[in-house]
Amino acid sequence: MAVGWFYLSCLVLGSLGSMCILFTIYWMQYWRGGFAWDGSTYMFNWHPVLMVTGMVVFYSAASLVYRLPQSWVGPKLPWKLLHAALHLMAFILTVLGLVAVFKFHNHNKIANLYSLHSWLGITAVFLFACQWFLGFAVFLLPWAPVWLRSLLKPIHVFFGSSILSLAITSVISGINEKLFFSLKNGTNQYSHLPSEAIFANSTGVLVVVFGLLVLYILLASSWKRPEPGMLTDRQLPLQLRPGSRPFPVTYKPVAVRQPCEP
Amino acid sequence: MAVGWFYLSCLVLGSLGSMCILFTIYWMQYWRGGFAWDGSTYMFNWHPVLMVTGMVVFYSAASLVYRLPQSWVGPKLPWKLLHAALHLMAFILTVLGLVAVFKFHNHNKIANLYSLHSWLGITAVFLFACQWFLGFAVFLLPWAPVWLRSLLKPIHVFFGSSILSLAITSVISGINEKLFFSLKNGTNQYSHLPSEAIFANSTGVLVVVFGLLVLYILLASSWKRPEPGMLTDRQLPLQLRPGSRPFPVTYKPVAVRQPCEP
Repeated sequence: MAVGWFYLSCLVLGSLGSMCILFTIYWMQYWRGGFAWDGSTYMFNWHPVLMVTGMVVFYSAASLVYRLPQSWVGPKLPWKLLHAALHLMAFILTVLGLVAVFKFHNHNKIANLYSLHSWLGITAVFLFACQWFLGFAVFLLPWAPVWLRSLLKPIHVFFGSSILSLAITSVISGINEKLFFSLKNGTNQYSHLPSEAIFANSTGVLVVVFGLLVLYILLASSWKRPEPGMLTDRQLPLQLRPGSRPFPVTYKPVAVRQPCEP
Repeated sequence: MAVGWFYLSCLVLGSLGSMCILFTIYWMQYWRGGFAWDGSTYMFNWHPVLMVTGMVVFYSAASLVYRLPQSWVGPKLPWKLLHAALHLMAFILTVLGLVAVFKFHNHNKIANLYSLHSWLGITAVFLFACQWFLGFAVFLLPWAPVWLRSLLKPIHVFFGSSILSLAITSVISGINEKLFFSLKNGTNQYSHLPSEAIFANSTGVLVVVFGLLVLYILLASSWKRPEPGMLTDRQLPLQLRPGSRPFPVTYKPVAVRQPCEP
């Protein structure tokens, strides 16, 4: 992949992720009255902001660490620590987002965990917790043998993408549900598409576009670390540092696919 | 991939897909009064059934055609025709599902296309239509040169998975929305989790599990056609037929990954 294309993609992803967070904050601040931590609806307003920030944007940033070509050369431990630390931050934001909605529900005698949105959301958070602890125990702590890591790595990667997909699905059903709850009076009904509805729908569309791009980058082979013996032009500008992992860096042009019948 | 594992996966996917359709039909028949084509709520009941059947299950089956090892040997045209025909069936069911909800809305003076669910759903259907016509024009008709097909193939594959992800997200937000609309009276409120809510939530979970498995199979390299020169044990039992595409079939054991640090 060309270097320019790589940096453009980073810029697009960073902008989209920031917009997802800022749009959600603006929605809650401008139309829903802002934020508090007192069990009121203003406390609920933290829920969408923290879930989009934690389970979608920070989670995506943490997952994409190994798609940076800088992580393919040199010692791997700092990148593992960054991957785990960013995911831990994402998890803490997510738990705070859950506290916000549970405390709001309990304070207002509203049942917890009955909607499909909540079932999928809580499943995503539960799987995220399992994923983090298993990842920490097997890939970060030094005890696990290579065969166990090799066995668990594809499972870790599969659940990584699945948790993000679940999170996006939960965010979309959550925005949809919140708008039906909030916009039901007089001319301000959801079906009349007031400005809040258009803005919040657009926020949902942004989250989906961002999530699909992240999932594409996570899963596309052109973004993955090349097999040993092949070094792409994206990696070429990088200097090998002292203590590098053994990684043959003879330059080969990116393999051109056979012009087979697609 | 071992042959036994492949057939087990097909069995699991087939069962899950059938259950998604049957559960949606049962939900609409048992709790929502069944089906009609007269603009009433019984007409709306076709909408979830046709969307789950068309945009999720048939769409998935059509997308997975090239993951069958039988499609990797012999002439490619019959498999392209099957891929296009199954997608066309999926598209027809989807359009009928849209007709059901638009006719119900228009008959009952309900606005169309205002919710986030509908925005994402209609985007999925629009992209599906573009994808089908572009695929038909470029990959099925014989005029397109190899370079154009090679250029468009990764875009076709990316949008294929993205459309399925959008469809699943729309189905989940739709089930969630429908339950909030339908279960709001007395003891039969959604928040009390009556049997209908548990059943419909479970249907949503089934759709998500099915969709994630399909996306995994679509994207995992172990399910894709091996590069020329490598033939997996899944392909070995297949006989090459007369008129086969040129495909070197010397048997090589599946490449074992380097036990690199995961």
